[in-house]
Amino acid sequence: VTFDLVLVGFGHVARRFVELLAERRAILQRDFGVTTRVVAVATRQHGRAQAARGLDVAGLSRAVVRGDRIGPGDGEGTAGFVASAVRRHRAAAQAGRLVVVEATTLDIARGEPAITHVRSALDGGAHVITTNKGPAAFAYRALARAANRANRRFLFEGAVMDGIPVFNLVRETLPAVRIAGFRGVVNSTTNFILTAMEQGQPFEEALTEMRAMGVAEADASLDVDGWDAAAKTAALANVLLRASMTPHDVERQGISAAAGRRAVEARASGRRLKLVARAGRESGRWAARVAPEELAEDDLLAGLEGQQNAIIFHTDLLEEFAIVQRSGSLTQTAYALLSDLVTIATHATSRPPPRARPRRTL
Amino acid sequence: VTFDLVLVGFGHVARRFVELLAERRAILQRDFGVTTRVVAVATRQHGRAQAARGLDVAGLSRAVVRGDRIGPGDGEGTAGFVASAVRRHRAAAQAGRLVVVEATTLDIARGEPAITHVRSALDGGAHVITTNKGPAAFAYRALARAANRANRRFLFEGAVMDGIPVFNLVRETLPAVRIAGFRGVVNSTTNFILTAMEQGQPFEEALTEMRAMGVAEADASLDVDGWDAAAKTAALANVLLRASMTPHDVERQGISAAAGRRAVEARASGRRLKLVARAGRESGRWAARVAPEELAEDDLLAGLEGQQNAIIFHTDLLEEFAIVQRSGSLTQTAYALLSDLVTIATHATSRPPPRARPRRTL
Repeated sequence: VTFDLVLVGFGHVARRFVELLAERRAILQRDFGVTTRVVAVATRQHGRAQAARGLDVAGLSRAVVRGDRIGPGDGEGTAGFVASAVRRHRAAAQAGRLVVVEATTLDIARGEPAITHVRSALDGGAHVITTNKGPAAFAYRALARAANRANRRFLFEGAVMDGIPVFNLVRETLPAVRIAGFRGVVNSTTNFILTAMEQGQPFEEALTEMRAMGVAEADASLDVDGWDAAAKTAALANVLLRASMTPHDVERQGISAAAGRRAVEARASGRRLKLVARAGRESGRWAARVAPEELAEDDLLAGLEGQQNAIIFHTDLLEEFAIVQRSGSLTQTAYALLSDLVTIATHATSRPPPRARPRRTL
Repeated sequence: VTFDLVLVGFGHVARRFVELLAERRAILQRDFGVTTRVVAVATRQHGRAQAARGLDVAGLSRAVVRGDRIGPGDGEGTAGFVASAVRRHRAAAQAGRLVVVEATTLDIARGEPAITHVRSALDGGAHVITTNKGPAAFAYRALARAANRANRRFLFEGAVMDGIPVFNLVRETLPAVRIAGFRGVVNSTTNFILTAMEQGQPFEEALTEMRAMGVAEADASLDVDGWDAAAKTAALANVLLRASMTPHDVERQGISAAAGRRAVEARASGRRLKLVARAGRESGRWAARVAPEELAEDDLLAGLEGQQNAIIFHTDLLEEFAIVQRSGSLTQTAYALLSDLVTIATHATSRPPPRARPRRTL
């Protein structure tokens, strides 16, 4: 199958994604029968470009890095851009081979315009893959229904722990398991800062270092005030626990210089301070929280250094298990998009209609 | 789809599996369109039973627990039993709805007769799901080829870390990722004994405790001499690294009372002794090893207490990540079979022929 891709957002992640597609072209074709071409790109500050027969994305990437424009238009009205791109590629959409790649940044107020992008893509018959946490954190249920109606996929593996499988893990490999709750460390910037502060580094200095490495969000508040973790927690709760919440429903406490003092004290008494995200059932309703917690040294989460992340799932049949990300990188986030693309090409849903017959392929 | 199941081996795992099928009957039907009936059972010491319209497996379970026979025949000649059961259910096999459930115990000399069971099932058009490590550890490549030829699945999630996804994780959620190697703690009995010995418990006493809990293998040598870990290592290497080895190719050192003294000394100096399984490339060839290793206290594997297991994967695109089993149980092993069964019903292969069109379901 040849997927026609519409890229909405063309920052570091989207640019690394198109590089990865080129680097893995042979294996994508040989093992999964997947080829791709990018037919439209919308950037926030560098204009827009489209070409039905495929754009020279490497050239567009270089232009953006140089600071040049790639075409007319601006970041406003991207919702209209998505809708019109999907209309323009109606034939590909009808054939199930149009994919909107949503790689804009998180809006913590309402998750927009990403939600509108996803909705108009699905309504037009396109699949959607995204690294943006907003759509699943603010509107998972409605968007999943829209995808179902359209018989298209809405996938967002990159929203949590980059390309390490979390949503795909549960959907594809844990049939009939009920997830009762989870706790984890899901924000790399705050974990790095806490680890650094334990060793005496001041808060601002550690934050500056994360910014220089390109890991911290441009708006520091998203990380240090716990918003990024809260958005991930809401997305996880909505998808895995079938809760219905937004990041604003997550009880939230971030970290600051004061947390640094707590971290040093905790360490001195053989404990570790971590920004823990958790969700589960409390008095008959879903409750979710992001807050610094002092953990015993032998807690799996206590051992996460620097930018490491982990989630411990509480389940019925499998009791507790955890998935651990031991390092983060732009490539891993971009890989999440690639894995979602392959999922569209190769994976059946975990919930086929009861009349479905088993596939006979190995 | 209604799967007709042929059970080869009817010990704790297989009996818990049929219980689980009953407990999850509604969700299997509703979410995955799967119903099941058991049409044949072969036990080692309690005879055999079959009925084309389905057996009363709960009754058979009770009989076996009481020590009664379920029918004529003995544990010899199970290979002939599988071949004839598959022939007898040829129509179900041709429809892709006959599944042989291989739940016999590991033979560390050659992996037989399990390999023969798997091969004759596949050759007869049945799918195979198994918790036995032998087939993947001794003959993965040949059996995968046989499955491919027959257009049937050969699945063995339960061979490593019970029902925690390992093989399914890589196959279903990590497309285009190359696994370069791994290291892990994969045998619960030895990890429990090492943890107990650190605290002063004698070797024999800890082993007796594991036996009483039903966790240790009947033949203690399989656990303490590292054979179980070696079989898992070979299976992981064959499947995930595309190596071609048997458990006898794994460099192997087990644990004994002497390891207890090392464990106490290691702990005193802030380190932990663990039975570590590892495989990777060395001087241009695959090398695999199981041996006690002293680990730094902040090593993820060092923190595994009692029966916990974990595997750290080394990959190209995702660098390092780990999956951690926080507790083990019979239910988890039995769940592996259930998840494999659902995989047959719902999952496409990760390697469809290049001509494959994308599925249009969500």
